[in-house]
Amino acid sequence: MFFASDNAGVVHPKIMQGIVDANTNYAMPYGNDDLMAQVRSKIRDLFEAPDAAVYLVATGTAANSLALACYTQPWQTIFCAQYSHIEEDECNAPEFYASGAKLTLIPTSNKMSPEGLAQAIAHRAGDSVHMAQSGAVSITQVTEFGSVHTLGELNALTAVAKAAGLPVHLDGARFANALVALDCSPAEMTWKAGIDVVSFGGTKNGCMGVEAVIFFDPSKAQEFEYRRKRGAHLFSKHRYLSAQMHSYLADDLWKEMASTANAACSRLAAGLRAAGAEFLHEPEANMIFARFPRAVHQKLQADGAKYYVLDGDVTSGPPEEFLPCRLVCDWAMTDALVDRFLAHF
Amino acid sequence: MFFASDNAGVVHPKIMQGIVDANTNYAMPYGNDDLMAQVRSKIRDLFEAPDAAVYLVATGTAANSLALACYTQPWQTIFCAQYSHIEEDECNAPEFYASGAKLTLIPTSNKMSPEGLAQAIAHRAGDSVHMAQSGAVSITQVTEFGSVHTLGELNALTAVAKAAGLPVHLDGARFANALVALDCSPAEMTWKAGIDVVSFGGTKNGCMGVEAVIFFDPSKAQEFEYRRKRGAHLFSKHRYLSAQMHSYLADDLWKEMASTANAACSRLAAGLRAAGAEFLHEPEANMIFARFPRAVHQKLQADGAKYYVLDGDVTSGPPEEFLPCRLVCDWAMTDALVDRFLAHF
Amino acid sequence: MFFASDNAGVVHPKIMQGIVDANTNYAMPYGNDDLMAQVRSKIRDLFEAPDAAVYLVATGTAANSLALACYTQPWQTIFCAQYSHIEEDECNAPEFYASGAKLTLIPTSNKMSPEGLAQAIAHRAGDSVHMAQSGAVSITQVTEFGSVHTLGELNALTAVAKAAGLPVHLDGARFANALVALDCSPAEMTWKAGIDVVSFGGTKNGCMGVEAVIFFDPSKAQEFEYRRKRGAHLFSKHRYLSAQMHSYLADDLWKEMASTANAACSRLAAGLRAAGAEFLHEPEANMIFARFPRAVHQKLQADGAKYYVLDGDVTSGPPEEFLPCRLVCDWAMTDALVDRFLAHF
Amino acid sequence: MFFASDNAGVVHPKIMQGIVDANTNYAMPYGNDDLMAQVRSKIRDLFEAPDAAVYLVATGTAANSLALACYTQPWQTIFCAQYSHIEEDECNAPEFYASGAKLTLIPTSNKMSPEGLAQAIAHRAGDSVHMAQSGAVSITQVTEFGSVHTLGELNALTAVAKAAGLPVHLDGARFANALVALDCSPAEMTWKAGIDVVSFGGTKNGCMGVEAVIFFDPSKAQEFEYRRKRGAHLFSKHRYLSAQMHSYLADDLWKEMASTANAACSRLAAGLRAAGAEFLHEPEANMIFARFPRAVHQKLQADGAKYYVLDGDVTSGPPEEFLPCRLVCDWAMTDALVDRFLAHF
Repeated sequence: MFFASDNAGVVHPKIMQGIVDANTNYAMPYGNDDLMAQVRSKIRDLFEAPDAAVYLVATGTAANSLALACYTQPWQTIFCAQYSHIEEDECNAPEFYASGAKLTLIPTSNKMSPEGLAQAIAHRAGDSVHMAQSGAVSITQVTEFGSVHTLGELNALTAVAKAAGLPVHLDGARFANALVALDCSPAEMTWKAGIDVVSFGGTKNGCMGVEAVIFFDPSKAQEFEYRRKRGAHLFSKHRYLSAQMHSYLADDLWKEMASTANAACSRLAAGLRAAGAEFLHEPEANMIFARFPRAVHQKLQADGAKYYVLDGDVTSGPPEEFLPCRLVCDWAMTDALVDRFLAHF
Repeated sequence: MFFASDNAGVVHPKIMQGIVDANTNYAMPYGNDDLMAQVRSKIRDLFEAPDAAVYLVATGTAANSLALACYTQPWQTIFCAQYSHIEEDECNAPEFYASGAKLTLIPTSNKMSPEGLAQAIAHRAGDSVHMAQSGAVSITQVTEFGSVHTLGELNALTAVAKAAGLPVHLDGARFANALVALDCSPAEMTWKAGIDVVSFGGTKNGCMGVEAVIFFDPSKAQEFEYRRKRGAHLFSKHRYLSAQMHSYLADDLWKEMASTANAACSRLAAGLRAAGAEFLHEPEANMIFARFPRAVHQKLQADGAKYYVLDGDVTSGPPEEFLPCRLVCDWAMTDALVDRFLAHF
Repeated sequence: MFFASDNAGVVHPKIMQGIVDANTNYAMPYGNDDLMAQVRSKIRDLFEAPDAAVYLVATGTAANSLALACYTQPWQTIFCAQYSHIEEDECNAPEFYASGAKLTLIPTSNKMSPEGLAQAIAHRAGDSVHMAQSGAVSITQVTEFGSVHTLGELNALTAVAKAAGLPVHLDGARFANALVALDCSPAEMTWKAGIDVVSFGGTKNGCMGVEAVIFFDPSKAQEFEYRRKRGAHLFSKHRYLSAQMHSYLADDLWKEMASTANAACSRLAAGLRAAGAEFLHEPEANMIFARFPRAVHQKLQADGAKYYVLDGDVTSGPPEEFLPCRLVCDWAMTDALVDRFLAHF
Repeated sequence: MFFASDNAGVVHPKIMQGIVDANTNYAMPYGNDDLMAQVRSKIRDLFEAPDAAVYLVATGTAANSLALACYTQPWQTIFCAQYSHIEEDECNAPEFYASGAKLTLIPTSNKMSPEGLAQAIAHRAGDSVHMAQSGAVSITQVTEFGSVHTLGELNALTAVAKAAGLPVHLDGARFANALVALDCSPAEMTWKAGIDVVSFGGTKNGCMGVEAVIFFDPSKAQEFEYRRKRGAHLFSKHRYLSAQMHSYLADDLWKEMASTANAACSRLAAGLRAAGAEFLHEPEANMIFARFPRAVHQKLQADGAKYYVLDGDVTSGPPEEFLPCRLVCDWAMTDALVDRFLAHF
C-alpha cells in the first residue's frame, strides 16, 4: 500500500524491456542515436508540431531548470505559483541554471490566478532598471496539489503573459495525468494554449528517469544544447533515455498508465468521500489531499500503508481528530490496494 | 569494429540484469534505497575508507563538476592539465558548478608535471586579492591520451598540492583501467596517494550511466548533497543508479571489464607497433594515439572500422603518408575484432 | 523643494572638503591608504567592536549584496521583508553575488514580524535537500516605508534567527536616521541586538558614494575581500572613499545630518497632520508616506515640488480625492522649504 | 619618486574642480543627470559614433567585466593574451559577470598574435557542444607590459575575430596613453579597427575613479543597463562620475595628461638606455620593464623611490647583478623626478 509518491515505484515492464532491447551493439552517443530520432519524430507528431525542438534529460528538475534558463535573463524574475515545484522542491536549481534570476511567487493555495499573475507583472511594469525585470511565467500542470488547469484556465494565464510579452513554460512532470483528465490533445494543452516550452514528464509515470523538453519555437534549440551539456545533463549513452521515451510513447502506453493512476485515484477519492473524509483540494488527477480521523491513520499505518501525513501526530491525540495527508496513485496502483486502504475507514 | 570511444558501447549484461532485478516493488527515492546502502558499504570497504562519503550521479561531467565545486571557491582557480577533460570536454560545467571559478591549465602534452604545477601555483602565491586564488588541483587518471600516472607520479603531484595547502581531485572516468594497469589497490591510487575526492567512473566501463563521487573527508558530504540536488542530479528513482554500481562492483566485474579492455588495447598496440605504426603517446590503458599510413586508414574505413582520425584527410593524399588517430577499446572488445583491424596493415 | 529622495542631493561641504584634502601626493591603493586605517579604527571605536572587520564600497547595493554573500550559500535562501530594498530595488544583485541563492519574502506591509519570520523559517525546517535551505536574515533599518525598528523589535527578530542558527544582516542604508530616531548607540542597534554584519550607509546621508560593511565576526574578512575584488568593487584610488567616511564620522557629522533630516521630516509630518493628511505609515525617520488631496498636489507641483506620487493621476480627477505620495527629507532640507511645502495646504 | 603605478596618484586639479562644481543643488540620480548627457554627446563626437551607447562605471574591472558579459554567453570562452589584466588582476570578475564563462589564454609574452588567436579559435571550431564555445576576443591597449598595438596590429587581430564571427572588446584602461602614442583618432583605434566595445579608462590617467564603456553597437545598451545595476555598479549620485569624465574630456585634458606621462616615460627610458639598462619590452607608452644593477636599485630605494622589483632580492646579492623592475609614469610625473631617478645610475 504505497501511496507516498509516484517517484518511487517500479518501471513499467514495457519500458524496462525497451531499455533491454536497446542494449545491442554500439550506438552514436550524446543524443545522436537512432532511437532519439524516432522519439523526436514521434513527439513532433504527437504535439502536431513539426518544427519543435525535442530533448531528453533524466530528471524533472533538469527539465524545468534548463527550459526556464532558455527563457530567462539573469536580471529577470520567473513568475510561478507560491507552492510550485520549482520554488519548493528544487533547491535553487532554477536560479542556478538561470544564472541567479529570481522567482516571484503568485500568492495562491493551489492554482495561479490570472489576476494574481497580472498583478505581479504589473508591479514590475515601467521600472527602468532597479527592479528585477519580468521574465518567463511557469505553470504547473498537474499542480502540486493534484489540480488540473482547464484549457480555459491555461489560456487565461497565457493570455496575461502574452499581453506582457512574456514566454510561458509548462511544468508537466505529470503531463500525462493532466492530459488524460482533460481528455484533450497534447497540442491543445500546450502550444494551442499559449505554452512556449514544456517539461514533458516520464519519470513519475512509469519511466526510470526521463523527461522531454519540447520547444515549440526551435530557435532556442542551440542554446538548450549548450546549457544541457554545461549542466552535465547530456548523456553519453543517451540511447537508454531514448529507449525509455520510445517505449513510453509506443501504443499510447503513457496515456494508459496515467489513466490507470487517475482511475485508482478517483476510486480512492470516492471511497474517502463516502467515508466522510474532507478534501483540501478537489482531486483531479492522481493525487489526493484529504483529512480523516487519526484513528483511521493509525489503522492504515498498522497495515503498512505508506503516505505523507501533512500535519499532526498520528500516534497520539484524540482518535476522532482529522489529520491531513497526501495520497498519490501511480500507474501500478490496483483496485485491490485501494479497496484495502478504504477498508480501514 | 568500433574503436571510436568507450562511451557508445553496450551495457554489460550483468549490469543490465542488476537494473532489471532492481525493478521490484517500491524503493525509497533520492538515494535512500537499500541498494545504495550496500554500494556505500562496498565502496568504503574497497577503498579501505570506512568514513568516506559516497554518492552517485549519472554523468562523468556531473561527478567532476560537483566534486570540484565542493573544493573550490568562486574566486579561486582549479589547476589541471592543458588538455584535461574538464577543460576540453565539459563546456564550462566546472566553472558553472564552481560559481564562476577559473581553470588554470598546466602546459603539457599529456601528464601534468610536478614542476609545471608548482610553477603555476607559485605564480599566484603571495598575491593579496587581485589574482584568482589557488583552489583545487585536478588530476586525470587515465589521462585523455591514454597514459597512466604511476603511484610515484601521483604522489609527486599531490605533494606539490599539499605543500601549498591545496586539495586534490582525481578524475577517474577510467579509474578501473588505470587501476588494472597499475595493479594496485583503490586506496593506493587515491587517499594513500594524497587524493581528497575521486570521480570513480562506471559509464565508460560497461555501465549505463553511473559515476561515484567519493569524499575521503566526509565533512564535505552535506555540501555535496545540496549541490547535487541544486544541479538537478539527484534522481528520484535512484535505485537504478545504485543497481548499476552494485553489479559493477560485484565479483570484481569492474576490474574484469577493465582488464579485458586493457588487454585488447595491448594486443592492438603490439600489432600496430609490429606493423610500423608510430605512437604519439605510449598506450598504458585502453586508448591508443598512433599514426599509420593513409592507405591503411582507407582499408580500415572500407571495412567499417570506426575511430577518430585526428588530423588530415583520409580520402585523398599520398597513400604512404602517416595520419594520426585515436583508438579506444572497451570491455566488449574481442581479440577477433582486434585481429581483423590489424589484418589491414 | 526636492522631496523625491535622499539619493540626489548635494554632498555635505565638509565631506567634499575631506575629498579635496585627500588629494595630495601618492597614497597606497586598494584600501591600504592611511585614511582607511583611521576609518577602521574610528568605526571600531564607534561600534565598541575592537575586532570588527571594516570595509568600504561605493554603493548600497554592493554593501548589501557582498555582506549577504558572505553569509549565504548558493543553495540557501535569504529571509527579508516583502518590500525590502534587496528584493525591490537591486535587480537581482543579492542573488547574483550569492551565486544564485534565493530570497524568501516575509509577507508584511512594512516591518517583518518575528512571527512571520519564524513561520517562514519553520516552513523549511527539517527538509533534507529538496527545498532551498535557510540562510541569512536581512533586516532593513530604516524600513523602506520610513519606520524604525525599536531595539526590542530588532532583538525579537534576531532571537528568531539565532534560535534557528541563522546569521543576521542589517541593511543600514539609513542607519544614521534610525540611530538618531532611537537615540541609542551603534552597538545597541547592531551587535548588541544580535546583528552579525551591517551595511552602514553614507551615500543617502550626505556622502558622495560610500558605504561601510562592518563584520562583527572578523572571520568573514578574507572572504569579503575576495568577493569585493571579484565584484569589481575594490577601488584603486580607495582614499577617496576613505576620505568621505572619515569626514562623515568626524565630529559626529553623520548624526548631525541625520538629525537635521529627521527634524525636517518631523516638522513636515506635523504640518501635514495638522492639514488633515493621512499617513500610510507613521513617519519615524526622514521619510513620509502620506495621502492628501489632488488639489494640493497640483499646487505643489505648480510650485516645482519634486516627490513621488505613488498612485493616481495628479493632473485630472476630483480635486478633493486623496492621492498617496512619498516625501523624503535629506540633510540639506530646511525649515523654509518645509514651510513653503506646507503653505500649499 | 613614485613609479609604482598610475593607480595611486592624485586626481588632476581640473577634475577635482569638476567634482566640486557639480556639487550644487539636486541632480537626477542613476545616470540621468545633465552632465551625463553632455558626456555622452561629447564621447559620441570624439569617437565619431553618433549612435554609440555610453555608460560610466567607477572601476576598470567593472568596465571590462560588464562589457565582456554583454558579448559572452555562459558556455563560451573569452580569448585574451596570457598576461592580460582580465586574467591576472581581476580575481575572476570576468567569469563572475559572464555567469561562469571561461578565459582562453593566447600564449604570448606581451601582445597577442593574430596567429596565436587564430589557432586558439580553430581549436574550438567545429565542436558541437562538448567544448566551451568561442565568445568575445579581448585586446588590451596599452598592454600590461607597456606596449602599444599599432593600428595594423589591431586590425589584424580583429580580422581574425571577425572571420570567426566573434565580437571584440578593447581594454583601454590606458586608452589615452595608447592614443597619444599612436597619434591617431579614437575612431581609428576602435570601431574603424574592428572594435565593438571599449573600456575607456579615466582612473589611471588622472581621474578619481571613472571609466566609460562605449558600445558602438547600441543594441547592447539595454542589457548593459541591467547588468550594471545587477552588478551594483549603478551610482545614485552618478553626477560625480559624470563630472569627472566631463572635466577629463574638456579641452583635451585626457590627451594632455597622457602626453605628459608618456613623455616622462620616454625621458626615463632614454636615460635608462644610456645608462646601460636592458629592456624586457620596448616602452611605448607610460610603462617601462627594465633590468639594471642591484646597486642602483639599492641607491634608488635609499632615496625613497617606489616601484616594483619583479624578481630577486634588492638587499643582498652581487651589486652588479641586473634585477628586473616595472616603472610607471603618470600624468603628474615631472622631469625633475625622472632626472633624480636617473641620477642614481
